[in-house]
Amino acid sequence: MTDLPTHAEIHEEGPREGFQIEPGPISTADKIKLIEALAETGLKHIQACSLVNPRLVPGWADAEAVLTGFKTRPGVEYTALWFNANGLERALAFRGKLTLHGAIALTASEAFTRKNLNRSHAENVEAMRKQTSLHLAKGIPVDRVGVMAAFGCNYQGDISPAQVIRTLEDGLAIATEAGTNITLFSLADTMGWATPARIERVLGEVRSRWPDKRLALHLHDTRGLAVANAHAGLRMGVSRFDATVGGLGGCPFAGQKGAAGNICTEELVLLCEEMGIKTGVDLDQLIEVGRMAETIVGHQLPSELIHAGSLDAFRRLAA
Amino acid sequence: MTDLPTHAEIHEEGPREGFQIEPGPISTADKIKLIEALAETGLKHIQACSLVNPRLVPGWADAEAVLTGFKTRPGVEYTALWFNANGLERALAFRGKLTLHGAIALTASEAFTRKNLNRSHAENVEAMRKQTSLHLAKGIPVDRVGVMAAFGCNYQGDISPAQVIRTLEDGLAIATEAGTNITLFSLADTMGWATPARIERVLGEVRSRWPDKRLALHLHDTRGLAVANAHAGLRMGVSRFDATVGGLGGCPFAGQKGAAGNICTEELVLLCEEMGIKTGVDLDQLIEVGRMAETIVGHQLPSELIHAGSLDAFRRLAA
Repeated sequence: MTDLPTHAEIHEEGPREGFQIEPGPISTADKIKLIEALAETGLKHIQACSLVNPRLVPGWADAEAVLTGFKTRPGVEYTALWFNANGLERALAFRGKLTLHGAIALTASEAFTRKNLNRSHAENVEAMRKQTSLHLAKGIPVDRVGVMAAFGCNYQGDISPAQVIRTLEDGLAIATEAGTNITLFSLADTMGWATPARIERVLGEVRSRWPDKRLALHLHDTRGLAVANAHAGLRMGVSRFDATVGGLGGCPFAGQKGAAGNICTEELVLLCEEMGIKTGVDLDQLIEVGRMAETIVGHQLPSELIHAGSLDAFRRLAA
Repeated sequence: MTDLPTHAEIHEEGPREGFQIEPGPISTADKIKLIEALAETGLKHIQACSLVNPRLVPGWADAEAVLTGFKTRPGVEYTALWFNANGLERALAFRGKLTLHGAIALTASEAFTRKNLNRSHAENVEAMRKQTSLHLAKGIPVDRVGVMAAFGCNYQGDISPAQVIRTLEDGLAIATEAGTNITLFSLADTMGWATPARIERVLGEVRSRWPDKRLALHLHDTRGLAVANAHAGLRMGVSRFDATVGGLGGCPFAGQKGAAGNICTEELVLLCEEMGIKTGVDLDQLIEVGRMAETIVGHQLPSELIHAGSLDAFRRLAA
């Protein structure tokens, strides 16, 4: 089945994913510089920071300073990530500058839920029920169900498509009870277990069950297959992707230090544009921002494209 | 069209590609150690060295010492690369230990032929005519036509499928004239221009024209799309791939230093095995050899998988 979208909506998460895991310290000014440079490339969705406990994620202890400091560009949506009522309050303080969305975030792996959140899946469902009500009470739309570890788990092994379906059903039940309408399913390959064949199987079952829901993928390149997985996703009609410039980020759940982060935004843009799928991004400009990110973190990033240059740059030379 | 092979034949080129480009110096003993370790993983085809001018490629000045030094493993085919009569003579000295194959090696880009070989395409055809006769006179089979820059060129830009077809026709004409039968076409993405869509287009045209020829791909990960391209190739029925352990190698033709090398053998094995395509390789053992390669070259290699560990390793932990 081929069902290519005409446009791919890319959600840039480089600042949030990258600076929470980089050993740093990275200056507040550098974080602001990267966010502002990303907005110049044509990217329309930028996750600016993580509003989490600074003792757990010291890299984002300066989240408020970053949110205060960066200049917005018209037409660009800036978001943040939070996990609890305290994070939500911090986000609400930047309402207007930040676009606030709530998500019902579940995990397809019971073992990972316990490891990551110290909760059972049932307890997590209960927590999401409360969080959804809280978001809606604050006037924040909740239109998305996210499923982590949707393609496999370092603690539980393979995850069946049926398990992903059940997890989505749990999310939809929470939404129905709260009286909110879910339009988007976001499936995350949290620990890099996805392969193109697995993407096809899981997305095939999800689309058969819910043909009207839009699908997003959050891919990690932990085992080098992220671009191949994105390609498989595009063929299955996925039209929204999270990505990080330069491949910023990392996988704290992989076996070794140095494991790769998310799919590189610029490699995803190259893939889409060469397939005739519009992203709205100026790839050469984005490559420059990837190189800037490399300078900011002070070490080589996983993106191959920022080291090689775009095809268009060579096409212009050859013309 | 999906036409998956049941088995993928992987030709490991890590020693040859890697040590010709690594700044080194790498000791002869380390080169031998890597070749011997690769043979223990289940890989059946290992390109051991490059028999080229040591002034141009100082990393392979010790080719004879390596060829003399490594112990062969039964059932494994060891090969070498050479470009001219002098290299051929050096290879013939190791006949028996090395399996000698000749190839008719052409380039789909006139600009790259001039840049890389300082010849026109017509002059290159003439050189290949002579080299083919020379190989056959020495009793070396010539059963392969290789096309470099088959998916694009940093000096000429996009390469059309029609240009690849014409180049293969030139190769077949040389073979016919010399009275040898070509069974394999090897298409090389020398400068990292391939995308999955381009792989499908080019391979589709080649297969339509010559449905009986076996296809091989030599992919570089210059712009991060190599695994996605391999996946597209498998779907088009490609059953033979060159690859390098750890992603050893590099692209001397890319815009920047630090550009990636070939597709990583271990990521290709992961892709194939998870699709049910047999490779005969023990992936966990190969990952250990990738880590050994990293130690030998003294810097991080592009392979993500050697840093994360295989899925099977985590499956065993989770079971």
